[in-house]
Formats: sequence, structure tokens, C-alpha cells
Amino acid sequence: MRKIGVIGLGHVGATVAYTLVTKGIADELVLIDSNAEKAVAEEYDLRDTISRLDTFTKIIPQSYAALQNADVIITAFGNISSIRMDGDRFGELNYNAKVVSEVAQKIKDSGFNGVLINISNPCDVITTLLQHKTGLSKKQVFGTGTFLDTARMQRAVGQAIHEDPKNISGYVLGEHGESQFTAWSTVEIKGHAITEVAAARGLDLNELDQRARRGGWLVFSGKHYTCYAIATCAIKLTLAVLSDAHLACPTSVYLENYDHYIGYPSVIGRQGVIEVNKINLTIEEQAKLDNSAKIISEKLAVLD
Amino acid sequence: MRKIGVIGLGHVGATVAYTLVTKGIADELVLIDSNAEKAVAEEYDLRDTISRLDTFTKIIPQSYAALQNADVIITAFGNISSIRMDGDRFGELNYNAKVVSEVAQKIKDSGFNGVLINISNPCDVITTLLQHKTGLSKKQVFGTGTFLDTARMQRAVGQAIHEDPKNISGYVLGEHGESQFTAWSTVEIKGHAITEVAAARGLDLNELDQRARRGGWLVFSGKHYTCYAIATCAIKLTLAVLSDAHLACPTSVYLENYDHYIGYPSVIGRQGVIEVNKINLTIEEQAKLDNSAKIISEKLAVLD
Amino acid sequence: MRKIGVIGLGHVGATVAYTLVTKGIADELVLIDSNAEKAVAEEYDLRDTISRLDTFTKIIPQSYAALQNADVIITAFGNISSIRMDGDRFGELNYNAKVVSEVAQKIKDSGFNGVLINISNPCDVITTLLQHKTGLSKKQVFGTGTFLDTARMQRAVGQAIHEDPKNISGYVLGEHGESQFTAWSTVEIKGHAITEVAAARGLDLNELDQRARRGGWLVFSGKHYTCYAIATCAIKLTLAVLSDAHLACPTSVYLENYDHYIGYPSVIGRQGVIEVNKINLTIEEQAKLDNSAKIISEKLAVLD
Amino acid sequence: MRKIGVIGLGHVGATVAYTLVTKGIADELVLIDSNAEKAVAEEYDLRDTISRLDTFTKIIPQSYAALQNADVIITAFGNISSIRMDGDRFGELNYNAKVVSEVAQKIKDSGFNGVLINISNPCDVITTLLQHKTGLSKKQVFGTGTFLDTARMQRAVGQAIHEDPKNISGYVLGEHGESQFTAWSTVEIKGHAITEVAAARGLDLNELDQRARRGGWLVFSGKHYTCYAIATCAIKLTLAVLSDAHLACPTSVYLENYDHYIGYPSVIGRQGVIEVNKINLTIEEQAKLDNSAKIISEKLAVLD
Repeated sequence: MRKIGVIGLGHVGATVAYTLVTKGIADELVLIDSNAEKAVAEEYDLRDTISRLDTFTKIIPQSYAALQNADVIITAFGNISSIRMDGDRFGELNYNAKVVSEVAQKIKDSGFNGVLINISNPCDVITTLLQHKTGLSKKQVFGTGTFLDTARMQRAVGQAIHEDPKNISGYVLGEHGESQFTAWSTVEIKGHAITEVAAARGLDLNELDQRARRGGWLVFSGKHYTCYAIATCAIKLTLAVLSDAHLACPTSVYLENYDHYIGYPSVIGRQGVIEVNKINLTIEEQAKLDNSAKIISEKLAVLD
Repeated sequence: MRKIGVIGLGHVGATVAYTLVTKGIADELVLIDSNAEKAVAEEYDLRDTISRLDTFTKIIPQSYAALQNADVIITAFGNISSIRMDGDRFGELNYNAKVVSEVAQKIKDSGFNGVLINISNPCDVITTLLQHKTGLSKKQVFGTGTFLDTARMQRAVGQAIHEDPKNISGYVLGEHGESQFTAWSTVEIKGHAITEVAAARGLDLNELDQRARRGGWLVFSGKHYTCYAIATCAIKLTLAVLSDAHLACPTSVYLENYDHYIGYPSVIGRQGVIEVNKINLTIEEQAKLDNSAKIISEKLAVLD
Repeated sequence: MRKIGVIGLGHVGATVAYTLVTKGIADELVLIDSNAEKAVAEEYDLRDTISRLDTFTKIIPQSYAALQNADVIITAFGNISSIRMDGDRFGELNYNAKVVSEVAQKIKDSGFNGVLINISNPCDVITTLLQHKTGLSKKQVFGTGTFLDTARMQRAVGQAIHEDPKNISGYVLGEHGESQFTAWSTVEIKGHAITEVAAARGLDLNELDQRARRGGWLVFSGKHYTCYAIATCAIKLTLAVLSDAHLACPTSVYLENYDHYIGYPSVIGRQGVIEVNKINLTIEEQAKLDNSAKIISEKLAVLD
Repeated sequence: MRKIGVIGLGHVGATVAYTLVTKGIADELVLIDSNAEKAVAEEYDLRDTISRLDTFTKIIPQSYAALQNADVIITAFGNISSIRMDGDRFGELNYNAKVVSEVAQKIKDSGFNGVLINISNPCDVITTLLQHKTGLSKKQVFGTGTFLDTARMQRAVGQAIHEDPKNISGYVLGEHGESQFTAWSTVEIKGHAITEVAAARGLDLNELDQRARRGGWLVFSGKHYTCYAIATCAIKLTLAVLSDAHLACPTSVYLENYDHYIGYPSVIGRQGVIEVNKINLTIEEQAKLDNSAKIISEKLAVLD
């Protein structure tokens, strides 16, 4: 049976929980929030939901102990009001850095030995801290990272040339934040290099990169948070772990040369990060990745 | 192909939209909100979602004209901040009664001739007004009504006797509001009358009725709105219309003797309300239903 | 993670396997058939399928050892050509009775300690033998029994009165075979006793019972086997076990007074048969159940 | 609402119908077979199935007239026993060429104006004939073609290097038959050209091509037909049409330079073939495609 924990029941965590229930993915679902009333509210909204579903999920509220034999934990804690209005995801750093130690210790104490998928921002920093503090292996912990930003790049490119986003492959890499970038050398449209398509159809890749990077901001400014795309990314990663799917996708993974987590191609399966999928970047792209890594490092240094 | 419109993108409407997309139910989805930025935000959050799904849905924001050939419209407008803190759903009456005329006229102008499912509160009053003002037939318009409250009753009873809520059948009837009641004479647990089970196991039906009626309040007080169970009810009704399922369930339907909509057993299919499922109530239950109808009537009279 | 085994890959077993894969239900699926080439063929047809699905399932062919930590085993062995052309499911008795000992011993040797759901016919006899020979508890073993026949009764009644089969509740009980019967005292249509509806609408319950009992025969004579409805019953039971759903439904369960398995109301969850749901039958229905039990007993006696 | 027709209810057509029902994809499903008893058998097996599903599908047997307003027709007629034991899909040519005229005329007479997806073999020949004889446009008609063979190539390559088949991109092109070939210049593994991976890991591409081409044979010899992967391909294409997904994939499409249908990259949406996705092949690959086209042409010439 499949047992999944969600820690942090803001809009993202609650949407993840709802989806795990309504798609019949989780057999048991542990829901934890710093606000006990919020956890109970989500528990009851989901229990009432189950009366109308063909599947069943057992909901266990507010129990770290119940995580002991969970297959996957998804961390989605955060304080959206701490995000600066320029949309910088580092705005949540101070708040979440404090929360990490407490959450990580409780996860450790539970005896949990599955895979931890982190959504909390700044994603790469918090994922790095969670791995340190839970004592789980670097394979067992990873973050959603630029899996979401890559979805937005696919949407932005698809929109520009009237294509289904799923016909766009390739990667947004680096920090899940301002220093991220689209590695255009990796991007293909139905098997054609985007550089060729861009030349033929007069696309401005810099502008598309801006749209990809700023995509979430449009959502954030209109509804004051983003939840559906990021939850869907987390669900896809969760299923990849549960079914050992060996899903190739960019996530926030530990890279030895940087000694921290960062958005990079990976392969996800039962053990977590099955493989870091090393790819050839252009010199310019490599420099952008190094720069993005440096920004993550600096934040980590400040916290030490 | 299936084309669905959602009018009102608060937590409920947005959750309905998200579910129609992530479950691959809608081929085309029209999203409308009085706040254009909110509609665009939901549009983009869902477009980014589609990059990570195996199904596709075309999202059309802010276009009443696009509703012309829709199969189903779900109305979920409202102003949650107008709900009085005692949880009375009539708190939204003044706000929504104003909105109804505008929305109904725009639906009428679009040429829409499908089925309208109303969630907006007070559900029975607003459904009555929507039917009047859109000019759609009484079959084509209905409300979620006590379909949600019945889910909560199933959960409350199930919880009390350690049963799956789906093993509980029967109805909560009347107003989707304070005057609703569980028609215990209709309630069975795995084929056994609840009155027998209650006698054998010492259940207090009045207390269970309270829990059912107050179930939503626990959710509301913890998260300041309720969304997942009500959205799931709306999704189930939408599918029943699309596939002509002849789903037997309580909804807010037009009863001739009261001359307005009220929560009562019905059968839902392609044409909307295929049948009002007349059931035998006890004298006491019938009196409660009459009382509940009177409260709805009074609100309608005030609005006239 | 969810691990499921299917033993016997005829039309029914293969359809069960296909559905577990295409609905993303199984994380690991063990496929076993007495014909190794058939097992490999199904393995490859399903592996090719996975290239086109959004979910992943690991397929493990021909390994009883792999069942050791499975959650559920579904037995669907049989020899359709041994069914007599009058459609009597006892026609497979001699063939399957021999297979049972071998399969049960191998399951036992694997160390399997989950739930076994038997489809193989004659279902009640084979389920009884499987429980004896695997050494699993009476809770851990049950058969699909009259869960399928009840589906057919719902379809037959629904068809007669133009209702969705899901609006019909109640039970077909007894042997999954010729001596089964519809317990009309349990049957309701949208909450109305069928006896009332039959009186009002001139339905002949005996004729409906014939249609329910003979429903499978129409399928069998047209395609020489039945597979989709029975596979769907098995899938629903499997999900009930995996998610501990406490699903109330008729299955082939062990009844102490008969000392063998027979189709009767039950509740299915993680441990298998959570509860035998004792119901009140009319004297006539009880006699039919006793008679059906006697027929099952006689077959078991012959085998001893 | 979604209305789909399936013509030909052998193992493939029946599996397509079952999947359209159990995944809740079709709201209405028209089932047609030259054997009326077979059609009724499938109708009843699926109606009984619906008693156990949370979704509903209306089943309409043996009515070409009902196809008039269908969105999609899937043709899966054939006579498996006419396949020569060397597995050559041209073995069905004589049988199916006769059936085509009759089926096409009846489709034409129905007034159907949606999208026709052909599975019947030899796929490219029959698709060409169906387009001619139905009078539907070349966009409205296409075949599953090498979409299945590409799935098998992905499986064969994935198996050789222990990768999820979905991590393999690229195309098998040409005839859905013996002259098909993997266009290795298009194949990538997680973004790496397979030629690089093959060099690094000592893979023999010719051998992999054989495994891809012969993949179906292993299934065919073990179960005497193949059904699950091909049905899943057809379902994915059907959904792409219903939701206008602009799915990029190889199908049997009409190429002007050959003046017939052949397996080639395409984009599938509401109108059928939205685009032929022209790709650059190596000289050797182009020669193989020309050769494969010639074989299809010769068969078409014989039929004239």
C-alpha cells in the first residue's frame, strides 16, 4: 500500500493532498501543519470529499509518528506573506530556515526512511538543509526545483508558436528563483532544435526566457500564490517514486561540484534520485549555471 | 467534445476548474471571474499544469460568448468575506443576489442552452433566481444543494460507527443552510435501517444530525472557506450530465408545491434534472421540509 | 508501494493485469501462467503499453518467489474449453480442482501473507479449497462470487425500467452458478423497495431473476468467454483491499454455518474480509441460500 | 459530449471499447461488428461492467446511423486467422480489402464527418483505401501506423540499457510491417543521441532494430494476437482528437510525394492530422523510407 505524508498545508500542500485523494493515489495520507486547526479543516474537507469518490484514502492528521513507514514525504511549509512583492522566492528564506530544523528533527525522530520531495522555498536552499538535518541520503532527498519552471518554459514557448507545451522538450536549469535560465541548447520542438525554429520564425529567445522566468509572477500577482502547476509537478514526482518509474526530468538535485542542491536533469525512481543526468551545456549556459549555484551557496553561507 | 464553463473563480470555482483539467474531463474550459487578473492567474496556473499532464484541455478565459455551445456551466461566484461568522450561508445573499442578474443576463445573451449547475450561496435561493433570469428550463438548472450536506452526514455517521461513508445511504434534505435536516427514515447502513443500528449501538441521531449540519463549519473555521468536498460534488454532477448517467442523488431541484428550488432526491442526466425522485417521509420529516421551504420562500420574497 | 500478483492469464487474468497497468493501480505486477509463452506474451504486450502511458508498472513474469511481499494475489486460472455448453460453471471443476493444489502450495511456499481474491470457477468451491491449502486465514481469502451476478442483476433491472444500474441496490446471493438467486427483499431502486416498483409497473421478478442469472450466458455465447465485467469486479475488490476501503458488497465469503465459501454480503478492507454483513432474508430466500450451499457442499464432498 | 464508434470487435476493437468505458472517456460508444452476436456479447459485458464503475457510458450496438454525429471512429476490423504464420501483416490484405469497401460506404452513408483512426492491417494500405472510399479529407483520416512500432522500439531500447521506455524519444518510420525501420538519427535517450550512447555502451543498433521490428511477434506467438499496446496507442490518439491536444507522434499519414499513407511524424488534434512534421533523415534512412513506401504502393496497385 502507498503511504504519503504532506508537511505544510498552505495552498500548495493542500492541493497536493486533494490530488492524492481524488486521483486515488494515496492509500494512507498523513497531513501535518503548524496550525492544528488548519490540519483538521483539511482533514474534514477531504473526508467529506471521500463520500463522493470511488476510491478511498485513510487520512491521518498531525502525526509525525505515522511517517515512520511512509513511502514519500512532501514538504510544502512556508509563509506566503513573507514573500517580497518583487516575487523573489528568497523572501521566504528567513522564515523557512527556522522551520527546517524543527521539521527535519521530527522527520528524523519518526524513523522515516523513504524519499523526501521538497517544495518549500527557496527550494534549493531548503532542500540542501533538509538533507543535512534529516540525515537521509542525498539520493533520498530532492526538490521540485526547476521542474515547475521548465513546465512554464514549455508553456511560454508553446504559446509563442501555437504548440502543445508537451511538444517542447529541454530544460530550465539552476536556482528555482531569479537566477534560473533556459538552457536553449537543450530545447527541441517536436525534434527540431529551437535555435533553428527561432531563426526560421523570428523568435526572440531572450524574450521567451523572460516569459518563462516571469511566468509564475503573472499567476502570483493575480491570485497571490501559485498552486496548481507546482502541485501537479509534485504529484508526478511522487508517482515516479512510488512506481520506480525512472522519470527523466529536471529537479533540485545534489551536485558534488557545487556541494548543494540545484535544478539539473535527473532520473527519479523508488530510491529517489536514481541518476544525475549529466548533459553538455554551452560555455555560456555553464557560466549561468555556475552563477546560479553561487547565489544558492551565498544564501547557505549566510545561514551558517 | 466536452465544453464546460466555470463562472466565479474563488476557491471552489478554481478547484472545480483544476479538477476538470487534471482528471482530463474537460476538452474545453471557459473560465470567468469578475476580477480579470484572477481569471488570467488561474488560466496560467492551469496552462503550466497541462505541461505535466497526459491529457489536454483548452483554456478560454473571460469569454461569455464562448459559453454558447458549452455542455455545462458551473456557477460558483460569491464573496466569502460576506459570510457572517456564525456560518449562515444567507450572509452571502445580498452580495450574490446582485451578481445573479448580471451573470444570468450574460449567460442568456451567450445563447447557452446546456445545463447550469449552481454552487453559489444561498444555494436554493440563487438557483431559483438563476433559473428565472436565464430563461433556461427548470430541468436545465439545478444546484448542488444538500448533495454536499449528505456527504457530510455520511462522513459523520461513518465516523461514529467506524464505517466507510460510502456504506451509508440516505438523504439530507431541505435548504443548503441552517434549516436542513437528515431524513433519518431514509438512512441505511449497508442495507440496515439506521434506526435499528442506532438502537442496537446507542447512537444519538439528533447529535449525528448536528454533526452533519455543523460539519462544514469545522472546515470553515479552520481554513476560512470550504472547497474540496463541494468541488467534488460539482464534478460528480457535471460528469452525470455529460454522460447522461441518470445519477440518483439529492440536489437543489424545483419542487412545484413550493414553487422554488430546495434540496430533494433527484436523478441527473444529459437534460439536467431527469426526475424528481418522490420519497415517503415521516410526518415529522415532512414538517421539517416544509419549514425549510418556508425559510427559502421568505428570502425570495425579501428580494422581490 | 502496491504489489499485486495475477495467477492465470486467460482472458480474465490478462484483462485484470491490463487494467492494473493502464489505470496506474499496481506499482509492481507479478504475472504467472502455466503456459510460459503466454506469460511472456502478456508481459511484452504490457511493456509496450507502458511506453504510451503516463504511469509506470514493473512487470515480473513467472515468479512465485516474487509474491512473497505482494499485497494482493488474484487467482484466475481455468480452462474455458472445459466449460460445458450449457454454461454450468461446475464444468471447470475437475480441471481447476487439480490446479488448486499446485497453485496453493506454490503460494504457500512463497511466504505470501496478503489477501487472496479468487475468480477461478466454480468460484465458491475453488475459494474454499484455496483457503484450506494456502493456510491463509479465512479473512485473507475470498472470491468474487456473486459480486458479478449482482452487477448483472443491477443491469437487468436497470434495463427493464430504464434506470442506471448503479441506482439499483441489493444482492444476488449463493453459489456463483446455477443455484444463485436474487434476494428481492434486499433490492431497492433509488430507495424504493423493488416489490413496490414491480407492483406499480408490472414487473415480473421471476423473469428478472432469470435475466440476471442468465446474463453472463448471453456474453458467453457471443464471445465464448466473459472478461470485462468480472475483471472490473476484481479490480474494485483489489482497490478496496489496498486502500482499506471497507467496501460493502457481496463476495464469496466463509460462512460458519455452512463451513464453506458462498456468495453473501461482506465488507472488504486491508485484512480481506473485515466483516460478514448478516442480513435478514425472507424464509423463502433463506431456503434458496441453504439449497445453494448444499450444492456447493456436495461438490466439495465429491472432491474429498 | 464525446461520442466514439468502434468498428470491428476482435481483441483489439474490444479492448479499445473496454478502455473507453473503464477510463470514462466515452459518453456514447457505438459498437459494430460483422458478427451481431459478438457485438451484443461485448455490449452486455460492458453494460455489466458499468454497474461497477463510477462513470457512465451509453452503449449503442450495431448502428451505423448512430455514427452520424460521432467525434471519432476507430476501425479495427480484421481476420486474425488470415495472418500468415511468418507474421506478415499483409496476410490480412485480401480479407480486409474486401471489407473496406463495405465499411467505408456505410460510414459515408451515415453522414459521419469526424475523424477516422484506422488500426486494421495492413495499416497503411487500409488507411489509404478508407480515405478514398469514405470521401473524408486526408486530414480526417489517419492510421495508428508506426506509433505502436515506436512504442516497441522504446521498450526494446529501454530494456537494453535499463531505462524507462518513456525516456527514449525518436521514431520508427515507414510501413507498419516488415519494411519499417528505426530512424536512429532521431532517437535520443534523455536528450543524448543514441549513436553516442551506443558507442559508449557497445549497443548494436541493427540488433535493436530487429528487436523493435520483431517485438510484436513475441507477443503474437505467445497469445496469438496482440491487443493491449495497440489499443493503448489508439486510445491516446482518440484523446488527442477529442481534446485537440496537438499530440506530436508518428502515425500513418498521407504524404503527397508518395500519394498514400505511411508511418511518419505527425501532429494530431481535433481536425485529425493537424500537421505532417517534416524531419531531416539521413540518406540511408530516406532510402529505407522510399523503399517502404514502394512496398505499400505495390500492394495498392495489386488491389486496383
